[in-house]
Amino acid sequence: MGDATLLPDRGTEILIPVCAVIGIAFALVQWLLVAKVRLSNGKDYAGGRSGYTEALIEEEEGVSDHSVVRKCAEIQSAISEGATSFLFTEYQYVGIFMVAFAILIFVFLGSVEGFSTKSQPCTYDSTRMCKPALATAAFSTLSFLLGAFTSVVSGFLGMKIATFANARTTLEARKGVGKAFIVAFRSGAVMGFLLAANGLLVLYIAINLFKLYYGSDWEGLFEAITGYGLGGSSMALFGRVGGGIYTKAADVGADLVGKVERNIPEDDPRNPAVIADNVGDNVGDIAGMGSDLFGSYAESSCAALVVASISSFGITHDLTAMLYPLLVSSVGILICLLTTLFATDFFEVKAVEEIEPALKKQLIISTVLMTFGIAIVSWISLPSTFTIFNFGVQKEVKSWELFLCVAVGLWAGLIIGFVTEYYTSNAYSPVQDVADSCRTGAATNVIFGLALGYKSVIIPILAIAVSIFVSFSFAAMYGIAVAALGMLSTIATGLAIDAYGPISDNAGGIAEMAGMSHSIRERTDALDAAGNTTAAIGKGFAIGSAALVSLALFGAFVSRADISTVDVLTPKVFIGLLVGAMLPYWFSAMTMKSVGSAALKMVEEVRRQFNTIPGLMEGTAKPDYTNCVKISTDASIKEMIPPGALVMLTPLIVGIFFGVETLSGVLAGALVSGVQIAISASNTGGAWDNAKKYIEAGASEHARALGPKGSAAHKAAVIGDTVGDPLKDTSGPSLNILIKLMAVESLVFAPFFATHGGLLFKIF
Amino acid sequence: MGDATLLPDRGTEILIPVCAVIGIAFALVQWLLVAKVRLSNGKDYAGGRSGYTEALIEEEEGVSDHSVVRKCAEIQSAISEGATSFLFTEYQYVGIFMVAFAILIFVFLGSVEGFSTKSQPCTYDSTRMCKPALATAAFSTLSFLLGAFTSVVSGFLGMKIATFANARTTLEARKGVGKAFIVAFRSGAVMGFLLAANGLLVLYIAINLFKLYYGSDWEGLFEAITGYGLGGSSMALFGRVGGGIYTKAADVGADLVGKVERNIPEDDPRNPAVIADNVGDNVGDIAGMGSDLFGSYAESSCAALVVASISSFGITHDLTAMLYPLLVSSVGILICLLTTLFATDFFEVKAVEEIEPALKKQLIISTVLMTFGIAIVSWISLPSTFTIFNFGVQKEVKSWELFLCVAVGLWAGLIIGFVTEYYTSNAYSPVQDVADSCRTGAATNVIFGLALGYKSVIIPILAIAVSIFVSFSFAAMYGIAVAALGMLSTIATGLAIDAYGPISDNAGGIAEMAGMSHSIRERTDALDAAGNTTAAIGKGFAIGSAALVSLALFGAFVSRADISTVDVLTPKVFIGLLVGAMLPYWFSAMTMKSVGSAALKMVEEVRRQFNTIPGLMEGTAKPDYTNCVKISTDASIKEMIPPGALVMLTPLIVGIFFGVETLSGVLAGALVSGVQIAISASNTGGAWDNAKKYIEAGASEHARALGPKGSAAHKAAVIGDTVGDPLKDTSGPSLNILIKLMAVESLVFAPFFATHGGLLFKIF
Repeated sequence: MGDATLLPDRGTEILIPVCAVIGIAFALVQWLLVAKVRLSNGKDYAGGRSGYTEALIEEEEGVSDHSVVRKCAEIQSAISEGATSFLFTEYQYVGIFMVAFAILIFVFLGSVEGFSTKSQPCTYDSTRMCKPALATAAFSTLSFLLGAFTSVVSGFLGMKIATFANARTTLEARKGVGKAFIVAFRSGAVMGFLLAANGLLVLYIAINLFKLYYGSDWEGLFEAITGYGLGGSSMALFGRVGGGIYTKAADVGADLVGKVERNIPEDDPRNPAVIADNVGDNVGDIAGMGSDLFGSYAESSCAALVVASISSFGITHDLTAMLYPLLVSSVGILICLLTTLFATDFFEVKAVEEIEPALKKQLIISTVLMTFGIAIVSWISLPSTFTIFNFGVQKEVKSWELFLCVAVGLWAGLIIGFVTEYYTSNAYSPVQDVADSCRTGAATNVIFGLALGYKSVIIPILAIAVSIFVSFSFAAMYGIAVAALGMLSTIATGLAIDAYGPISDNAGGIAEMAGMSHSIRERTDALDAAGNTTAAIGKGFAIGSAALVSLALFGAFVSRADISTVDVLTPKVFIGLLVGAMLPYWFSAMTMKSVGSAALKMVEEVRRQFNTIPGLMEGTAKPDYTNCVKISTDASIKEMIPPGALVMLTPLIVGIFFGVETLSGVLAGALVSGVQIAISASNTGGAWDNAKKYIEAGASEHARALGPKGSAAHKAAVIGDTVGDPLKDTSGPSLNILIKLMAVESLVFAPFFATHGGLLFKIF
Repeated sequence: MGDATLLPDRGTEILIPVCAVIGIAFALVQWLLVAKVRLSNGKDYAGGRSGYTEALIEEEEGVSDHSVVRKCAEIQSAISEGATSFLFTEYQYVGIFMVAFAILIFVFLGSVEGFSTKSQPCTYDSTRMCKPALATAAFSTLSFLLGAFTSVVSGFLGMKIATFANARTTLEARKGVGKAFIVAFRSGAVMGFLLAANGLLVLYIAINLFKLYYGSDWEGLFEAITGYGLGGSSMALFGRVGGGIYTKAADVGADLVGKVERNIPEDDPRNPAVIADNVGDNVGDIAGMGSDLFGSYAESSCAALVVASISSFGITHDLTAMLYPLLVSSVGILICLLTTLFATDFFEVKAVEEIEPALKKQLIISTVLMTFGIAIVSWISLPSTFTIFNFGVQKEVKSWELFLCVAVGLWAGLIIGFVTEYYTSNAYSPVQDVADSCRTGAATNVIFGLALGYKSVIIPILAIAVSIFVSFSFAAMYGIAVAALGMLSTIATGLAIDAYGPISDNAGGIAEMAGMSHSIRERTDALDAAGNTTAAIGKGFAIGSAALVSLALFGAFVSRADISTVDVLTPKVFIGLLVGAMLPYWFSAMTMKSVGSAALKMVEEVRRQFNTIPGLMEGTAKPDYTNCVKISTDASIKEMIPPGALVMLTPLIVGIFFGVETLSGVLAGALVSGVQIAISASNTGGAWDNAKKYIEAGASEHARALGPKGSAAHKAAVIGDTVGDPLKDTSGPSLNILIKLMAVESLVFAPFFATHGGLLFKIF
């Protein structure tokens, strides 16, 4: 046991930052390539990137039309301004919360040993001395703020590149679908690589800085580092919920008046809510998703590190093996870099039918290559046998077993991706059946859509269950944590695919608003349809990894709270389980109702503008876009507070009043119940959206029989799509964060709950 | 410990059957009172109840119109025939399954000791000898068949009285809403009392007969009795699922063509699916609900008895204390009898507004009185202290603690009832908000309705959690079982209120079909609107009791399978939990899709008839009702098999291949996840239905602004109502049975799984 690793510690210390820097550099290169598409001719562009005088003007109709370019630039700048202003407003409110919560962390954790500044015997090895709880409190607070900040940067940069790329994608669409695809995909890659590399680098630097104080007390060091995950996820909560409410209030509001009442097309510039709708894609699907996946990544790394620190790696101070989770992520960046080249350089997308396969190939290539990557990392950075802390005992694990843990997570992610694609792409029978049910109206469409979502959970849940079983059996909670990391190891590719969707969606919106020709709109629609499916796949990854991460955090929490069993057959645990399983419903009720109310306000404003602004319907007057942006902003800021409070306060209240056993039940209940609702909500919504697109596109005889746009079946499909909006973009994806955040929060506060918690039972 | 009870054993042996007989007699008296409403004048009535020459003809317009009475009798007879024929078809198929399953039970349980006929040392007290496993196998099989048979009788009698009362309610509605209310409510009471008394009597007789063989081996005796619960629930599964698919296929099919396409009112005789729709109410909401609640009652009694048999009552052979669960139910019958008189004799309903309060009072009165009833039973039939088996150890319990267990269940039921009323009655803001959201179309209606359902789980879950905590803490699994019995102790009243709903619904349908005046239809509509809320309350009780019952059965299973902890932190249990939480989604997907497909077939048939039968729309030709009845029958028989197989096979497959730990996880997961979906589905559906009725009735200024019938908002409300149909009447209520049945099946097969199960883990 404890034999040396092939990779020396010095090698690890070089490899991780180098990989992170390569990732960042690659992202910058992609950015420069996207920037090559010129969007201005010097003066007109409001964003200020002056100096370009010659636009890339080559092939088709309208390419040489400077007024179109100017219009696109204007729209883009309006979207970008709206998104930036929303995010800044959001960050202000969340900033206040973060500071308050940071103080809470410090006070609660500091109080564990009565704010003593003296070193204490270590929890897991009482022969040694560890740093005082006060230090853990201070460093946890610090890493919490660091995690929140990194999450903000990730989300904000993603939004920036997305609003930088959307109009460029539109302009490239004039030259062909392949060119447009590359721009959208490269922009997605910028976000993916920046986020993955950034998350890794900040974490690595934080570990090294904290080590200056902690020295050989790795147990305390990695306990303090868990704050990083909490910070990332807290930020993600508000990003997802706030962004989700924003985007869907605008989307639903725009659709209800525009498409249903006024019978004008989606993204029509006459619709006052159209800019808000496009802003929403960027703040919800891009910034929110970025924060969410960054949170998952940070949390699974932290969960793995905290378990490793009390396993043989931590005890023998084996740095390379200890940082195995970071090494997996480092190699992941390199593999994803290679994978990206397959989409942008090695092959070329030439036709509409090639878009979805190209994206799907990204998933397959990255998974296959990464399997070898993991094998190599496991071979060079792990001793052939070692021990892992398993609820009070040390369990012997072999390096190839740990390889299997990571690999099973990775491949489970691929399976979830494919199942999601099957249930949400209109190339397969499930979505076609839903479209078919529109023949008998909106009611059957809704019934079939809900049934599809329910059914779509079966295989993902079995895939997650198998990964859990394998990794749990081999390496206990450490195994689960690295399985989650395995699923997230191709995060750069996953995010690239995912961010591609909203960028294409925006590109389509800009084409419509700039009054570009029908054929260009068709190309962006094709990009967007593929994007709907990839968005669903991205959500599948997010929820799958969230389930594994939460379980790993849950395990780490239980270890740290010093419980050795969580027995369902005790009343404390069982009521926790039952109430925990209820929380996702409560949370969904809040978020869905928020979207509904905000959309109602939006509808009233849009109707008001149509009724009071003369010439608006005729296109001779401009609507007041700003007011709609303001309504979405205000509503989402206001409405994100109650669901946010539910998630953040539940672990605190349960831990303080009912104690750690009940809290364990709550975490397990929320996990097993939330994951199902999240998957079904996201797939139901995706399926409805694509059923509508299936009828609109009319690519098969069946689809043409249901269409065209404006037919009774199409109207029924639009209703389904509208119902699906809050499900797939607000309540569904926010549930990932619910389950992760409650787990990581419990983990961070575990020493406090174990010391001062369970007041109610202590009193009675 | 073990001091004598106030009630001697002889007293118990008299009290239980006497109460049961009183219940049956009371039901017969109510039946006779309903039968006083004459429905025939000798020759015309197809059903053959000849001999009445004078109909009760008194007050209002149309009362003396013999042709209306004849028409009502005809319609009633068509509904009754359709329902009887469906139930017989259903029973044939289910009969085959029951026989096959009975053989399986015998073989599996017999194989536990290799079909040995020799007595064995008892499981829990190895100093004594118990009957061989083969005897348990034989008697379990017998009680299984007995339970199934009693369930059939309960459902069938309920359907018979409901189809006997519906036209009578219509006719009484001519004289006033109060008279009609009494007929509908009395008929409900017939069903409630017959079912409660019948279930009790059969169980009591079975125990006494089995005792002839088992003698002093109470452990074996009550193990064998658990088959009664399994039989009851297996039958209920098919009743609920088959009946649920039947009723909603017909309802959705009738609405989609009739209301939406052809713009004819509900229950219009020109609609070919109208008879099938009315048949559905009787086979789904009456027979299905009856079987369901009978199953809950049988299972909670069995769960309590099996735990008691290995507690001090069983060990010291204290008959009165042992039969405490049956004594609670016996007193419940007397209390409900008294409660019924408050609705039918002590007070009189004179106006529409008094209907809902009258029904609500029934709940309150029965709960308050029953609290005293339980106190008395606990005082006279329990020793002041005794011990209860608690996962391997005996736990000391005081009689007042057990009283609290039963009482907390009883009152939790009332709270669930009130919360359900709040969320589904259009007298309160939640439903009014949903109605209001129809202003912006069907999509917002669906979003708000789903959010309402999600939100409505919060308080019921907390109420269930508190009952579980209290009863679990006081008396372990026995406490949970008696808490469930407490909730079900007022089952006669609960069922009376519940059955009242579909009877009123049918009465309205018959009024419409018989071409009676608008004012009569308004009266039946008012009865029906109250019925929608009470149906939701009934479903709330059903799911609340199902949750408690399942947990009690789960506990009994764990005891019998000889596991002492179910630790979430083991991979076997956790994957069970995760997959178990997925099963309700899989099941709902199946049942909802079944309703959708069957409804599509119905829509096509109805459309075909409207298009091919000349004069149908004009009312000059009669539609072919029989064909629609046949479509519903065939579809529901065919479609009930896959969900039925899922529920019945899951415990067998998991137990045999993965073993009892994983099965424990599956049961706990299905329980905590299923209860949420069941509550939210049933309340969402109830709210949509009443939001529609709110707009139609136009009782307030707000409602009138949304209406009238046919307005855009009303159309949106109809879509919501249609979506809600399968949720509230098929998938939601069937989930009760899913969680109960899997638990009781696991309990019955526990010795087999413990001996031969877990093959996969044994092989690897």
